[in-house]
Amino acid sequence: MTRLALIRHGQSQWNLENRFTGWVDVDLTEKGRAEAHKAGSLLKDTGIEFSACFTSVQKRAIRTLWMALDEMDRMWLPVTRAWQLNERHYGGLTGLNKAETAEKHGADQVKVWRRSYDIPPPPLEKGAAFDLSKDLRYISLGVDVPATESLKLTLDRVQPYFEAEIAPRIESGESLIIAAHGNSLRALVKILFDVSNDDIVNVEIPTGNPLLIEMMDGTLKPSSARYLDGERATDLPPIK
Amino acid sequence: MTRLALIRHGQSQWNLENRFTGWVDVDLTEKGRAEAHKAGSLLKDTGIEFSACFTSVQKRAIRTLWMALDEMDRMWLPVTRAWQLNERHYGGLTGLNKAETAEKHGADQVKVWRRSYDIPPPPLEKGAAFDLSKDLRYISLGVDVPATESLKLTLDRVQPYFEAEIAPRIESGESLIIAAHGNSLRALVKILFDVSNDDIVNVEIPTGNPLLIEMMDGTLKPSSARYLDGERATDLPPIK
Repeated sequence: MTRLALIRHGQSQWNLENRFTGWVDVDLTEKGRAEAHKAGSLLKDTGIEFSACFTSVQKRAIRTLWMALDEMDRMWLPVTRAWQLNERHYGGLTGLNKAETAEKHGADQVKVWRRSYDIPPPPLEKGAAFDLSKDLRYISLGVDVPATESLKLTLDRVQPYFEAEIAPRIESGESLIIAAHGNSLRALVKILFDVSNDDIVNVEIPTGNPLLIEMMDGTLKPSSARYLDGERATDLPPIK
Repeated sequence: MTRLALIRHGQSQWNLENRFTGWVDVDLTEKGRAEAHKAGSLLKDTGIEFSACFTSVQKRAIRTLWMALDEMDRMWLPVTRAWQLNERHYGGLTGLNKAETAEKHGADQVKVWRRSYDIPPPPLEKGAAFDLSKDLRYISLGVDVPATESLKLTLDRVQPYFEAEIAPRIESGESLIIAAHGNSLRALVKILFDVSNDDIVNVEIPTGNPLLIEMMDGTLKPSSARYLDGERATDLPPIK
């Protein structure tokens, strides 16, 4: 049986401070590291043998994967880092505390930016604090760093990467791990479970709690899905 | 300028116990972890920007690389794991303490196995303790686990991999990191510095002390080489 495990990184320092993070390379907190270990332990307990892993180029996802692989005694598994799996870019909200943002722009407006499918926040200006357009990793990868992204714009980069690099391997029967971010994983869940634009914004994948999806053989069609830590599970998208 | 940094993993538990390790997947000790951090710190201080990393499928090398990349704030660099960069397989000596082995086989014979270029130790029998021919990673990689290896046999697998996957990238101007093992690195040093069969067995690369090699542009010809931790440097092979 072919499986896909989606792991949202554990708590980061800015998750803790309730700040919009996006592409800023914030590290895990101690709690986040504990979540990463737990995720690895839960994956190990399944006894599933995965053949490869994918993650973003952001350290909170990479470290989560590293710690999980260490716990699973599978440090030797191949790991591909892809900027396309990065978190949604929060544009001009990057670095702001969510409460302060609500005071400044109004809670309703912030809710629109956070929860609408296709309305991006205002752009992050070049040269502003947290502008990453000069970051070496993106220059070396030839990536044009976005100025802002909606969930739709996030999906617009996740989907082609997924279809080119990951989907064929699932269809050929490989079981894979993807360690990524709230919104890049939301995009993947939207694709895999065919979730509507309206519904996907309410799907909240918990941190450090692997979502294990079983696929019908040779397809990208989920036959079942469950969170490995049942006590911290959220509602799953319905299997169609 | 094109650079190649070779890092021998930090002290492992079996280094500490003076046991022949080879392909057994022994982890770093606390001292080994400290060496890995130090290696990362020394590499960071050079200010060199590397574009990719290579390592073995053994956790003592992978962890050394992870810790160095963490220290360098370069966790996003692509990492390729290759079994061809594994440690030399010590055959029937695997797991034995070096003093006990000398008592059993005689110190002169052990010296031959450790220090000759092309005389392998007796083979490790299938099904013996530490036989890894059923290890999932090698099965999944389609690798026929050797029963024993001399340094020459180690080089016979390191060299084709190096020439196919690493050398063209150096020649095209990329600066790379290779985190590996005493004998797979010895093989690389033999290739790069054109060291004779007699001399290479006396080259001892210190653990966790990056050997930084500068190449003449567009070539695999070293123009200089130095250990980043000068206080723990050993003799370098002469530049020809």
